[in-house]
Amino acid sequence: MTQTTANFADRLLDAIEAKGSPVCVGIDPKYDQLPPALAAGAGPRGGADADASAQLARIGEFCWQVLEAVAPHVPAVKPQSAYFEAYGAGGVETYFQVVRWAHELGLLVIGDAKRNDIGPTAEAYAAGHLAGPDKADSLTVNAYFGIDGLKPFLDVCSAQGKGAFALVRTSNRSAGQVQDFANAEGKKLYEHMAELVAGFGDAAGLVGRRGYSSLGAVVGATWPQEARRLRQLMPRQIFLVPGYGAQGASASDCAACFKDDGTGAIVNAGRSVIYAHRQAEYADLPWHKAVQRAAKAFAEDIKKAVTAVVRSS
Amino acid sequence: MTQTTANFADRLLDAIEAKGSPVCVGIDPKYDQLPPALAAGAGPRGGADADASAQLARIGEFCWQVLEAVAPHVPAVKPQSAYFEAYGAGGVETYFQVVRWAHELGLLVIGDAKRNDIGPTAEAYAAGHLAGPDKADSLTVNAYFGIDGLKPFLDVCSAQGKGAFALVRTSNRSAGQVQDFANAEGKKLYEHMAELVAGFGDAAGLVGRRGYSSLGAVVGATWPQEARRLRQLMPRQIFLVPGYGAQGASASDCAACFKDDGTGAIVNAGRSVIYAHRQAEYADLPWHKAVQRAAKAFAEDIKKAVTAVVRSS
Repeated sequence: MTQTTANFADRLLDAIEAKGSPVCVGIDPKYDQLPPALAAGAGPRGGADADASAQLARIGEFCWQVLEAVAPHVPAVKPQSAYFEAYGAGGVETYFQVVRWAHELGLLVIGDAKRNDIGPTAEAYAAGHLAGPDKADSLTVNAYFGIDGLKPFLDVCSAQGKGAFALVRTSNRSAGQVQDFANAEGKKLYEHMAELVAGFGDAAGLVGRRGYSSLGAVVGATWPQEARRLRQLMPRQIFLVPGYGAQGASASDCAACFKDDGTGAIVNAGRSVIYAHRQAEYADLPWHKAVQRAAKAFAEDIKKAVTAVVRSS
Repeated sequence: MTQTTANFADRLLDAIEAKGSPVCVGIDPKYDQLPPALAAGAGPRGGADADASAQLARIGEFCWQVLEAVAPHVPAVKPQSAYFEAYGAGGVETYFQVVRWAHELGLLVIGDAKRNDIGPTAEAYAAGHLAGPDKADSLTVNAYFGIDGLKPFLDVCSAQGKGAFALVRTSNRSAGQVQDFANAEGKKLYEHMAELVAGFGDAAGLVGRRGYSSLGAVVGATWPQEARRLRQLMPRQIFLVPGYGAQGASASDCAACFKDDGTGAIVNAGRSVIYAHRQAEYADLPWHKAVQRAAKAFAEDIKKAVTAVVRSS
């Protein structure tokens, strides 16, 4: 198969430059956290939506308005598959609708589904979640299987200009139970995983004209010291960085994931942007205006921190 | 939430005893591998089905007939979510239809989806794939996040009599790239993961009257030496054992995953059963008869190998 579109890493870095900030917004819709005006106001008798399909319709409406609000300020969004899968097949339909809407608005899509398996099974996941123009531009994956688990995804990446982000160092508190397991030289599993990912990402057809690979890495912002080390171990990986905002990491924590030239990472914020209506500073605004303002503030906060990295180097 | 049904480990072991063999059949439907009589014969003008929804209808028909054929011989089936997700939302609808059909036929369902995430996101996966009577009885999960990633699934297990199987030692060739990473004492990551899983599985509400936990472990049959060691490290885990048949492991390789009393594991076979029509010995049979005969032969092969373990101990 010939490559039908440009390398994903190049596409992502171009989009970041065009929008002026290396950020993406996590589309993590939970019905009980939707803005009251949206969730209850339009329901039957002004109350909560009674059944799953009514909730899902409201979730779809919420996602569309969030996408419209953030599109001018961010290059990419990261819809979280789990929140859609919670509603079964109908939710999955809405997930793919969100992917198409994001594309219509000129946004790149990082599908957050953390799929993992081997051989024909991983091929089926890649077909369902990554292959073709109506699917996400890139997908999060879990590399516990080694290269057998990544290759089917990477084949789609090189053939179709798509990307993948492998879990390396996750942002959660118990990450170390598994990821800090260390060998005799003190190398930890997440560093070993980083070296594997760096190697896999150099495969034919993955590295773009800017020197980055379409195989990126998930590196939590909650561990800035480790991020600096991982930045060295994975020179050609774009880091997808969770942990900002609701999970406690600051913009300067996130900055540890970037190179001295200010490239090499994209920072995600979900709840702190899409549920901005709950924050005191945005309380007087219509909820979608609050989302827009929070997205803009998030993008500027990260831009400032990354600019400081570039200046100090 | 009170537990509405019996502990999953007890339910699974009871079902194994009732059917007489510790096996499950992997429901891994790929359109281009369906029996010719089913795939082409009923299509328009006798040719291949033209579009995805026609293929999916045929896949649904195939799954129903496979379930009917194997139900008298095996206690459980393991539908692989990826093959359904390859068809988008419609495929997911078919997956849940397969789960319901399996339940109607009295089969336990191990949903093979290898989901993984943390906190509210993992809760959403557990809600979508495990919670409620119309969902699978148990789900495969990937524990790279540590306990943060497993807890939301385990909460559903203890509240609703469901189960989970965490990846410990996978059956694929490159498994060792990640899973053989060893500490200073020579302990490998998969052994460390086994110890973590054994600990997590002892949490309140998970261990049933037979002494097994609702949190089991995926342990590939392709590594029998390691399986024996893992059997010691995880005394209360039921092993879900892939690798038999198409992947190259024999019944006596699989037997290494069982305790001396013949309990403690369930062996999966997918392609070698559901595509039995391609094997010379079944070539003269209608394809669903071939599936039935292959399921019966598989169940007897494993039963014999496990009985040998019991006798020799």
